[in-house]
Amino acid sequence: MRLSEKELISLIKRRLAKSTPSEGTIVGPGDDAAIIAPTPGEALVISTDAVVEDVHFRLEWATGFLLGSKSLLSSISDIFAMGARPQACLVSLGLSSRIDPLFVEDLFEGMLKEAGRLGASIVGGNITRSDKVFIDMTVTGLVAPGAAITRAGAGVGDAIYVTGCLGGAALAAECLFGGRMDKGAVVKTESFLRDDMAEPQGDDAAQIALLSRFFAPPIRAQESLTLAAARICTSMIDISDGIGSDLREVCRESGVGAVIEIDSIPVFDRVPGSAATKKSDMLELAISGGEDYELLFTVRQADELRLHRLFRTNDLCKITKIGRITPSSEGLVFLDKNGRASGGFTGFDHFSKKEEGH
Amino acid sequence: MRLSEKELISLIKRRLAKSTPSEGTIVGPGDDAAIIAPTPGEALVISTDAVVEDVHFRLEWATGFLLGSKSLLSSISDIFAMGARPQACLVSLGLSSRIDPLFVEDLFEGMLKEAGRLGASIVGGNITRSDKVFIDMTVTGLVAPGAAITRAGAGVGDAIYVTGCLGGAALAAECLFGGRMDKGAVVKTESFLRDDMAEPQGDDAAQIALLSRFFAPPIRAQESLTLAAARICTSMIDISDGIGSDLREVCRESGVGAVIEIDSIPVFDRVPGSAATKKSDMLELAISGGEDYELLFTVRQADELRLHRLFRTNDLCKITKIGRITPSSEGLVFLDKNGRASGGFTGFDHFSKKEEGH
Repeated sequence: MRLSEKELISLIKRRLAKSTPSEGTIVGPGDDAAIIAPTPGEALVISTDAVVEDVHFRLEWATGFLLGSKSLLSSISDIFAMGARPQACLVSLGLSSRIDPLFVEDLFEGMLKEAGRLGASIVGGNITRSDKVFIDMTVTGLVAPGAAITRAGAGVGDAIYVTGCLGGAALAAECLFGGRMDKGAVVKTESFLRDDMAEPQGDDAAQIALLSRFFAPPIRAQESLTLAAARICTSMIDISDGIGSDLREVCRESGVGAVIEIDSIPVFDRVPGSAATKKSDMLELAISGGEDYELLFTVRQADELRLHRLFRTNDLCKITKIGRITPSSEGLVFLDKNGRASGGFTGFDHFSKKEEGH
Repeated sequence: MRLSEKELISLIKRRLAKSTPSEGTIVGPGDDAAIIAPTPGEALVISTDAVVEDVHFRLEWATGFLLGSKSLLSSISDIFAMGARPQACLVSLGLSSRIDPLFVEDLFEGMLKEAGRLGASIVGGNITRSDKVFIDMTVTGLVAPGAAITRAGAGVGDAIYVTGCLGGAALAAECLFGGRMDKGAVVKTESFLRDDMAEPQGDDAAQIALLSRFFAPPIRAQESLTLAAARICTSMIDISDGIGSDLREVCRESGVGAVIEIDSIPVFDRVPGSAATKKSDMLELAISGGEDYELLFTVRQADELRLHRLFRTNDLCKITKIGRITPSSEGLVFLDKNGRASGGFTGFDHFSKKEEGH
């Protein structure tokens, strides 16, 4: 790299020193380890997630700012998926000698923007050489004991809900990796997310909306905290691998099955001309594509009215009921509009082929 | 990879379920995030560190078990370097399709052995595809507020001490990367560290001693906790980049300079025939080589007697005084036995050339 590791670390430390540390930071970046004060009476939540060059992104079309944003958001999503508030982030970078220091500065700009918005601060990290760039981010959070929402509490009869809409991130990834959207559209998306451009119009607006699903997924912070405070969910997970895979995790951990009505799945619909896709392909992306970082959660039928009131009175995002929990003997079933188990979406094993995709 | 990501995760979860969770683990591996209970009144310490294929190791000579051991120890070292007790580890793996599941099982065997010995447990992690293997480990710990030892407290006149001896890990790395020691010696080292062999003799014993410095660095757990409890150190750091670089960090953070007497530096001396090295080269490795994970710490002159008594009565490792803290205007100076500033070791900038090495 054009700066030595130590010079790069100094540059990053100077940038981080200008950001506001979150409450509880006792020792920030620059020592052997960071020190943060837990809130008395609360438990620590911690998770880690990595993005890797040529697996999750390509340097030919990604920008530092957007990668910083994406890596921060995809990691912090796991904290909210437990119903916890994020507190501190550690950034472990693998950087090749091809990487410009400006790229690294932009990476931290993107991370800091999203961390600041979501109440977390970057307290430490590590830099190492690596042929392919990787960004591994660990995030800690806090939650009142007993308020955390795991994958393990779904009960037979519970309704299954998702926030927002699905499939957009996977479609964006398909377009980016497949060359159907180029760096120009990515740069416009960055300008938009940096609040550096006037309201986009027409196909520009649709391209930005689509790419934002990939680079700046809509972390449902208020929604998850409200759900946790209301103690209304029996289980919750963030959708990082598609409903098929993530719901299967909930089923496995809760010891239940599930039936999903395919036509009720809310699919991303602001598709720009350059990314035109059949509806059935969008459904496939919503189910198996991943990286949407919407929430999937279950509530008891008796709590559904309260759930809708909760989202309405707090002005939260759209939620959609997509199915219900069944006994584990019934497995995971996807039903088409005629109530028939839909080919290709019927079972647990269909998705294993997909799992090694990005 | 020969197993899908999910299959590999299941395999790892089954293995982790057999290990004893450390005190305070509320939700372990397998959910969106882990949950751990802090000890009331203590602060959370957190650090991250990565090892990368072809930068820190080569697959042609490393074993899964030894890499697991090395990655766990090099990360946990930062927690002890703050005077804190480790609690929870998160393992973020980048694995290529060439990797055998047995390698991954061995990796966790190595990690779990060392984590168990040092009182930590593995509570979560992540797996992603990556062309080159990387292991990024985040470790959390606990410390009484005010007992943590940072890099920032060294004062003029303080004595500078190091634990154990230096240069062995860098010599081992030189031999491994340079083809002067082969996989046979590495496999013997693994057997020895797994307690699977009789006491080695002769050159075998020396090879194992050398390679153990690289794969299983001697984390100074009791030493650092004793130092923290005694509140005797004005600063502390673990030596991961060589005294030159790490002492410079202490000087920068504390706003001081330092003078080091080169001849007092304790150098690794169980060098096997195959790794024969000039004494001056061993000194160079001790100063600039890194990866020793010994502790460097400073104490007030008035506390030196108490320090030695503390180490003797608690039966702790060897410590050696190597110099003293000076005003920052004097910089970082290395003196030879005639009291002359030694060429090559005189200043801050000499080491910048080395920083991009492994």
